[in-house]
Amino acid sequence: MAAEILCVGTELLLGNITNGNARWLAEQLASLGIPHHRQTVVGDNRQRLIEAVQAASQRCRVLITTGGLGPTPDDLTTEALAAAFSTPLQERPELWADIQAKLSGRGRPIAASNRRQALLPQGAEVLPNPTGTAAGMIWSPRPGFTILTFPGVPSEMRAMWRATAAPWLRDQGLAPGVFASRMLRFWGVGESNLAEQLGDLLEQSNPTVAPYAGAGEVKLRLTACAATTDAAEALLAPLEAQIRARTGDACFGADDDALAAVVLARLRARGQTLAVAESCTGGGLGAALAAVPGASDVWLGGVIAYANVVKQRLLGVPALLIEQHGAVSDPVAQAMAEGARRATGADWALAITGVAGPGGGSDAKPVGLVHIAVAGPDGCSSEGVRFSPSRGRAWIQTLSSGEALNRLRLRLA
Amino acid sequence: MAAEILCVGTELLLGNITNGNARWLAEQLASLGIPHHRQTVVGDNRQRLIEAVQAASQRCRVLITTGGLGPTPDDLTTEALAAAFSTPLQERPELWADIQAKLSGRGRPIAASNRRQALLPQGAEVLPNPTGTAAGMIWSPRPGFTILTFPGVPSEMRAMWRATAAPWLRDQGLAPGVFASRMLRFWGVGESNLAEQLGDLLEQSNPTVAPYAGAGEVKLRLTACAATTDAAEALLAPLEAQIRARTGDACFGADDDALAAVVLARLRARGQTLAVAESCTGGGLGAALAAVPGASDVWLGGVIAYANVVKQRLLGVPALLIEQHGAVSDPVAQAMAEGARRATGADWALAITGVAGPGGGSDAKPVGLVHIAVAGPDGCSSEGVRFSPSRGRAWIQTLSSGEALNRLRLRLA
Repeated sequence: MAAEILCVGTELLLGNITNGNARWLAEQLASLGIPHHRQTVVGDNRQRLIEAVQAASQRCRVLITTGGLGPTPDDLTTEALAAAFSTPLQERPELWADIQAKLSGRGRPIAASNRRQALLPQGAEVLPNPTGTAAGMIWSPRPGFTILTFPGVPSEMRAMWRATAAPWLRDQGLAPGVFASRMLRFWGVGESNLAEQLGDLLEQSNPTVAPYAGAGEVKLRLTACAATTDAAEALLAPLEAQIRARTGDACFGADDDALAAVVLARLRARGQTLAVAESCTGGGLGAALAAVPGASDVWLGGVIAYANVVKQRLLGVPALLIEQHGAVSDPVAQAMAEGARRATGADWALAITGVAGPGGGSDAKPVGLVHIAVAGPDGCSSEGVRFSPSRGRAWIQTLSSGEALNRLRLRLA
Repeated sequence: MAAEILCVGTELLLGNITNGNARWLAEQLASLGIPHHRQTVVGDNRQRLIEAVQAASQRCRVLITTGGLGPTPDDLTTEALAAAFSTPLQERPELWADIQAKLSGRGRPIAASNRRQALLPQGAEVLPNPTGTAAGMIWSPRPGFTILTFPGVPSEMRAMWRATAAPWLRDQGLAPGVFASRMLRFWGVGESNLAEQLGDLLEQSNPTVAPYAGAGEVKLRLTACAATTDAAEALLAPLEAQIRARTGDACFGADDDALAAVVLARLRARGQTLAVAESCTGGGLGAALAAVPGASDVWLGGVIAYANVVKQRLLGVPALLIEQHGAVSDPVAQAMAEGARRATGADWALAITGVAGPGGGSDAKPVGLVHIAVAGPDGCSSEGVRFSPSRGRAWIQTLSSGEALNRLRLRLA
C-alpha cells in the first residue's frame, strides 16, 4: 500500500465542516497514480492521534496529514507525531523568523504561542507554507515510512501540495504506473440493469469498470493503469467503445457532460432554441439548464405554470382542457409545451405536469405520476411516467426534469 | 469510546465525491450526545474492509457503516462484515419479497444480482430501507459491539437513520445525559459577524452554541445536556431568547424552517399570492418555492425570462428600458416584477436579473452583480447586490434566490 490520509480536527467529528480536504487530496493522489487505500479522521486528541499514526505506519509508505498545525493548545499534530516515534522537537530558527515576518507584515501581534509553530521533530524537513504561519514537514521517522503534514486551511494546504509535495511524491516512484480514467454517464437505465448488461466487464481488473448510482443518473467509471498516459488511454478506448455499443443510446455523455449541457449542445449545433413550461418541477428544469454556463444562446426561458391560472393566462391552455382531462394529463402537457413555443418563439419546448406529493395524489393520479411533453418543429408528443413516490417530492422533481431532458436528447439524436 | 463511522467506497478514495455522509452522521451523533472519535474510509475491497471492522470492534461500542449495500459485485459490505466475524449469511425472505415488490413497482426488471441484497448475517436484525432496495442491519457480532449498516445514497441513509437508527441509539444509553438541541437560522448576516455579536455565548459550555456557514445562510446550533429532556429544553429557551433579541430580524426560523417556507407561511397568513420573474437564476427561485410541500395555495408560478425576448413578450418589459439601462438594472428588475404581478394576477412578485458568470461580466456590470425587485400591493422596490464571483455560478444563483426571499420576508414582517 502506498499512501493514506489522516485528517485531524474535532470540527470534523462534530460535523461542523465537510471533509473537503480528504476529497481534494484523494483526487490529487489518483491523478498522480499513487494508490491510496484508507482515510482516517481523528479529533484534536494527542493519544488517539499517536495511535492512528502508529497504525498507519504499519500499513503505508506515505502518510498525509491535514490539520492541527496552528498555534492554539488544541493543535497537536506535530507534537503527537514526534511522540509517536519518540523523537525530540527542535525549534527551527528559519521557521521562527518566517513566522515573525509574516505576522508583522499583517500588523498582527506576535503571540508566544506562535513560537510552537517553529518546532519540528529532529530530522524532519520543512514543507514550506508560502502564505500562512503553519509550515508542514516531510519526515521519515523510519526507513520506508514518510509523513507529510499540512495545515487544515484548504487554500494553504493546496498551495503547499502543488509547490512542494506533489513534485516530491512524483520523484519517489510510488506509483505502479500511470492511471487514466473516464466516467460514462447514463439516463434511462438502472444500476442493476446496467451491471447485468456489462457483468463480464465489471469483473475485469485492468481496465476496471465500476458503477455509481445517483438521482436518476447512473455512472460507470473506467480506470486503466499502464506505463504511460498514452498506453493507459489506449486501454480505455476499446472498452468505452464496447460499452457504448452494448448500451446503445442510454449513454448520454462522459466526464463533466451534464444531461442539460448535452441537450443544449445538440440544439446549438442545429441552431435551434428551447423553452420550458413547468408545473410540478416549479423551475427545477430551468435551474438545470441555467446551471450550464453559456446556456443563453439556446435556452430562452419559459413559464413556471404552477397554478392552473398561469397555465391558462401565459401558456394559453384552455380551461376546458384542464377541466376535462385534469392538469396532470397528456393533453394539458402538450398544450403547455405548444404554449411555451408560441409564447417565447422557441423551436422546441419541454413541458412537465405531475403530482410531486406528498399531498394531491388520487387513485387515478397518484403521487409520482408525471406527464412530459416534447414539442418541436415536427410536432408534439407526450407520455406519462410513474416515479416511485417513496423517495419524496425532491426526488420526483429531479427525475422529472432529467426525464424531460433525456426525451429531448433522444428526439435530437 | 462510543461510536465510530466507517464509510465504504472506492469513489471516496478516488476523490469522485465528497464524504457528505460522514459529516451528516457526525452531526447526528453530536446531536444525540454520543461521543464519536474516529472516521475511516476504505474502498470496495473485502480484505481491507474486514481489517477496518475488526480494528474498530476493539475500540468502539457502535460502528456505523455507509456504502457497499448495492446489488453489484463491488458491493461487499455485508459479506465482509459477516466474514470478519465468521458468521454465515442467510437470505431473509421478507427482504427478498420487499426488493421484488419495489422493483416491480418501478416497472424495473428484477436482476439476479438484486437477490444478494436480501442476504444478512445470521442473527442480524433488518434496518429497513423505506425507499430503496438496499436494506441495512443492526447486528451485534459479539456482546458490547454493534454494527449499523446504511447504503451510501444520502437520502436513503438519512431516512433510515431517522426512522430506525436514531431511536435505537437513543435507547442504548450511550449518551452521558439527555441532549436537546435547536438550530437557529439566519440570512443577511455573516458567520464572523454573528460570532462577534455572540462571542461570549460561543464560549459557554452548557448549553453550547456552534455556528455553521452554508450558502448564504448561517446557522447556530444550540445544544444543552441535562438529566431529562424537559430540563435540557429549559436550558435552551432563555439562550434562544437572548440570541434572538441580540440579532434582531436576521433570524428567520428554527430547525427545519426553510426560508422559502417561512415566506410562504407569511403570505398564507395574509391570504396573499406570489409570482416570480427570474433571469440569471433560471428557475432556481421557483425550485426553492416548489420544494415546499403545499406551496400551491400561495405561489402561482411565474416566468423564466432568461432571454430578453421573454422579458419583453411575457413580462411586458419595454425593449427601450433594456436598451437604456441594460437587462441587469433596477428599472428592468422592477419592470419584470410588475410584469409578473400583472401576468399572473399575484399580489406579490419577486424579480431577479444579474450576471451569474463565468462569462458576460463587464467593468460596469461585473460577474456577481444581481438586481432584485420586490413588487407588492404597496409598490415596487429594487436594489442591486454584489456577490463575490469567486465561488462560481451556482453559488451566485443560490445566493440570489435566498436574498430575494429574504427581502420579501422583511417586507412582510
